[in-house]
Amino acid sequence: MAKSKFEYVRNFEADDTCLRNCYIVVRLDGRNFHKFAEQHKFTKPNDNRALGLLTRSARSVMEELEDVVIAYGQSDEFSFVFKRTTHWFKRRASKFMTHVASQFSSSYVFYWKEFFGDQPLLYPPGFDGRVVLYPTNRNLRDYLSWRQADCHINNLYNTVFWTLVQKGGLTTVQAEERLKGTLAADKNEILFSEFDINYNKESLLHRKGTTLIWEKIDESVTKRMKIPNEEEKDVIVTRSKKTVQAHHCDIIGDQFWEDHPGILEADS
Amino acid sequence: MAKSKFEYVRNFEADDTCLRNCYIVVRLDGRNFHKFAEQHKFTKPNDNRALGLLTRSARSVMEELEDVVIAYGQSDEFSFVFKRTTHWFKRRASKFMTHVASQFSSSYVFYWKEFFGDQPLLYPPGFDGRVVLYPTNRNLRDYLSWRQADCHINNLYNTVFWTLVQKGGLTTVQAEERLKGTLAADKNEILFSEFDINYNKESLLHRKGTTLIWEKIDESVTKRMKIPNEEEKDVIVTRSKKTVQAHHCDIIGDQFWEDHPGILEADS
Amino acid sequence: MAKSKFEYVRNFEADDTCLRNCYIVVRLDGRNFHKFAEQHKFTKPNDNRALGLLTRSARSVMEELEDVVIAYGQSDEFSFVFKRTTHWFKRRASKFMTHVASQFSSSYVFYWKEFFGDQPLLYPPGFDGRVVLYPTNRNLRDYLSWRQADCHINNLYNTVFWTLVQKGGLTTVQAEERLKGTLAADKNEILFSEFDINYNKESLLHRKGTTLIWEKIDESVTKRMKIPNEEEKDVIVTRSKKTVQAHHCDIIGDQFWEDHPGILEADS
Amino acid sequence: MAKSKFEYVRNFEADDTCLRNCYIVVRLDGRNFHKFAEQHKFTKPNDNRALGLLTRSARSVMEELEDVVIAYGQSDEFSFVFKRTTHWFKRRASKFMTHVASQFSSSYVFYWKEFFGDQPLLYPPGFDGRVVLYPTNRNLRDYLSWRQADCHINNLYNTVFWTLVQKGGLTTVQAEERLKGTLAADKNEILFSEFDINYNKESLLHRKGTTLIWEKIDESVTKRMKIPNEEEKDVIVTRSKKTVQAHHCDIIGDQFWEDHPGILEADS
Repeated sequence: MAKSKFEYVRNFEADDTCLRNCYIVVRLDGRNFHKFAEQHKFTKPNDNRALGLLTRSARSVMEELEDVVIAYGQSDEFSFVFKRTTHWFKRRASKFMTHVASQFSSSYVFYWKEFFGDQPLLYPPGFDGRVVLYPTNRNLRDYLSWRQADCHINNLYNTVFWTLVQKGGLTTVQAEERLKGTLAADKNEILFSEFDINYNKESLLHRKGTTLIWEKIDESVTKRMKIPNEEEKDVIVTRSKKTVQAHHCDIIGDQFWEDHPGILEADS
Repeated sequence: MAKSKFEYVRNFEADDTCLRNCYIVVRLDGRNFHKFAEQHKFTKPNDNRALGLLTRSARSVMEELEDVVIAYGQSDEFSFVFKRTTHWFKRRASKFMTHVASQFSSSYVFYWKEFFGDQPLLYPPGFDGRVVLYPTNRNLRDYLSWRQADCHINNLYNTVFWTLVQKGGLTTVQAEERLKGTLAADKNEILFSEFDINYNKESLLHRKGTTLIWEKIDESVTKRMKIPNEEEKDVIVTRSKKTVQAHHCDIIGDQFWEDHPGILEADS
Repeated sequence: MAKSKFEYVRNFEADDTCLRNCYIVVRLDGRNFHKFAEQHKFTKPNDNRALGLLTRSARSVMEELEDVVIAYGQSDEFSFVFKRTTHWFKRRASKFMTHVASQFSSSYVFYWKEFFGDQPLLYPPGFDGRVVLYPTNRNLRDYLSWRQADCHINNLYNTVFWTLVQKGGLTTVQAEERLKGTLAADKNEILFSEFDINYNKESLLHRKGTTLIWEKIDESVTKRMKIPNEEEKDVIVTRSKKTVQAHHCDIIGDQFWEDHPGILEADS
Repeated sequence: MAKSKFEYVRNFEADDTCLRNCYIVVRLDGRNFHKFAEQHKFTKPNDNRALGLLTRSARSVMEELEDVVIAYGQSDEFSFVFKRTTHWFKRRASKFMTHVASQFSSSYVFYWKEFFGDQPLLYPPGFDGRVVLYPTNRNLRDYLSWRQADCHINNLYNTVFWTLVQKGGLTTVQAEERLKGTLAADKNEILFSEFDINYNKESLLHRKGTTLIWEKIDESVTKRMKIPNEEEKDVIVTRSKKTVQAHHCDIIGDQFWEDHPGILEADS
């Protein structure tokens, strides 16, 4: 194809290859989701439709893009971890973050109806993304722990806050005032003594967020088969298939990682 | 809010500030759009519904994000030029490219119905993006010229190719064979002598692509007003409003830029 | 040559190509030069031997490396400006800054004797460097103006400070106290009224720093020549030669740049 | 201090912080050292004076800069490994590479006389540098192995080549021709059968290069002490001191690393 004299502008593109042998993490955050949640009447403190849609979109990212080994989401954010040895798009950071942001965003609109039914989506939502590299398994696990600790801190706060408002009859200003300076123990105590709520029995989805990983599951399929010298007949075939599975559990401790040893590669 | 011991992982995030006083260009490209076009039965060589949706999504990007001074699109790609002095998100490259990719992608699904009516969108589409910096007006104009020259080259090829197939009865393999090694003049000649088509009279939208810029337009609004000592009455108010306008014209030569002197800032 | 299984480690090297069409500036700063100056008994406020050696080393950088179009130095720093279109070492930032730092440092030791005679260099000095890009001529000139303004501010301060100490009999603590909060005008006034010194007549080298540029100078060389049918004889040949010339003048205003139009390339 | 209107140019400086928890390696290479070696009559295939000066300069880098845990050199190159958790100069890549290049270069000229005596240094030599990050101990060791394998390959070649020339009477062109396509075993065989040289008994310095590490050594110092109720007397005090020690041994296998367990930090 004929080259134009303008072709030289291609050389202004910078190389943004990610350092080899590091986990590539892309984290997405909702843009102005506080306002988005209000306009779409999300229930407080958590809206299960919104969380479901968030997870559905994240699943779409894992299934459509390559080499995501684990993803973790809560509130209006989702983090995607690509395996440390991935060579997808030559490890170019821009490819990773824009593909994730794009696939997630189009999926969010595409699957809206599945979660919100007839309630209309008022405008196309936005998500921003970033790439962060982690050189060791410890660093990566600490990153995921940081996000899950953040989930815990925010959810505890929001749970007490909205309980004070919804059941305690406080205004939002009063609830905010009431919680100023309180520690986790204080918040647990308010829930328990004033509202008879044991925070540790609240929904795991809300307390732990959502972890997506690839897992093999056995699938039984009925196939019509013709075996030589026999009549054609139905045979039940069991096959193993890798699918994205959601977990709502602690990922800070070692248990989860011991139960799923295939997620991380050794530091070597 | 309590900080966890995992907070240190934030320091692994790299700074990706764009060099000051350079135009920041984000270009999006459709992911596997060849297949997407086939599955959604795009007409050949150009599908006006698809081009309309592309432009509608680009308009959404310009209206929702800040400081885009011009955007140019064709085929399955769109480039967005941010003003050289923008301080949006501290000029962080990741913010620019992911916001554009996200807003464009969610808009593409959101506005699908407006252009494709009852024809369903089969799956959420993806777009990847990149950031490129241009230090001078000349470099920026050469970038846009490069994309428009690309539009011209591809559209001329596609026009002849599909004319040979659709009107000339050739198979796609024969059409490809026929065009091997032909220059622009040869292609024009095939169209003219064999199919009585003057390429230069073909649609500007297809030949020149779509350029979006901000323009002031006068808007007349009827307002019910009450002036002291007079009866309330309808008054027609004319006000100037900045809106995104589409152009399908040459942007390689000087004319367009002389007609719209406000787009570029001087090299200083 | 046989490749080892360790070769893969090369891929960990990051690309650090400088954006095209921008001036590449490398600035060096002396490491712990306050202490170095004391240990080598530099005269205060300026030591002409040290400034001479600094300039000699900078000249070595310009002569040995490619595409430096102008360099500016003062105190213990020197900035080197590479032409915006340079392709030296594929514009890799690391090559620019380490070559400059290395050549400057080895030259500083190599030429020490020429400026300090028998006074020994006590240990090998260090300089650190950085690369900064400037997209336009205005930005580049503002960078150089920034450094020259810095030279002026520091030299005025140091001149008054050391005059108060050396001629006024103040201790360094008293001189510092005396100058706290004074403006440029105040400092000029102290020099003039108390010590009969007109700052504007002080050495240009100290007030303006040193600017190095390439200039053509005519050189007369005597050559022994043999012209056909004549006797061999001495002929004086004048030839033009590009050499590095030092200037101690204002580079903030336009005059210098109008006098040397070849230094900068147009913004295009 | 007064700020000038030019100060804005500081914002054009890019952040070049090295990713946390990775080893920072700076490698220096001599500039045009083939020519430098010829002009300074380096003996072939190895010049012990030149190697000594190289190592002396590297030692200066280790002693003057912070956090270098190991350095490895051969021929005209030297690699410096900073500990993975270093916070020297906020991990800015430019600081690391320019400080190393500068300190090494000034030291090379400064210590020249110690190794070359009265033979004059003809001009100030140059070294370029680069920064490479390694996320794991395995990657770092593979990097060092790569350099030592390179040392072996080059030294074997050079040893045979110069033996063929110096003892075998071949021209350099003939020697080159003779070695074309030979494997390591062939080269060993030439040395052994034709020149009675057992390559494995050649100097370890030449075959293995030089590894510098920090080691504690006991130092005995005589101090004049006054103990209460006793006469003043000389006391021999033994104290432990960290100094840079040179090794010429294999660093590809595990032995060296087991013998010096303090060099690397665990991957965590």
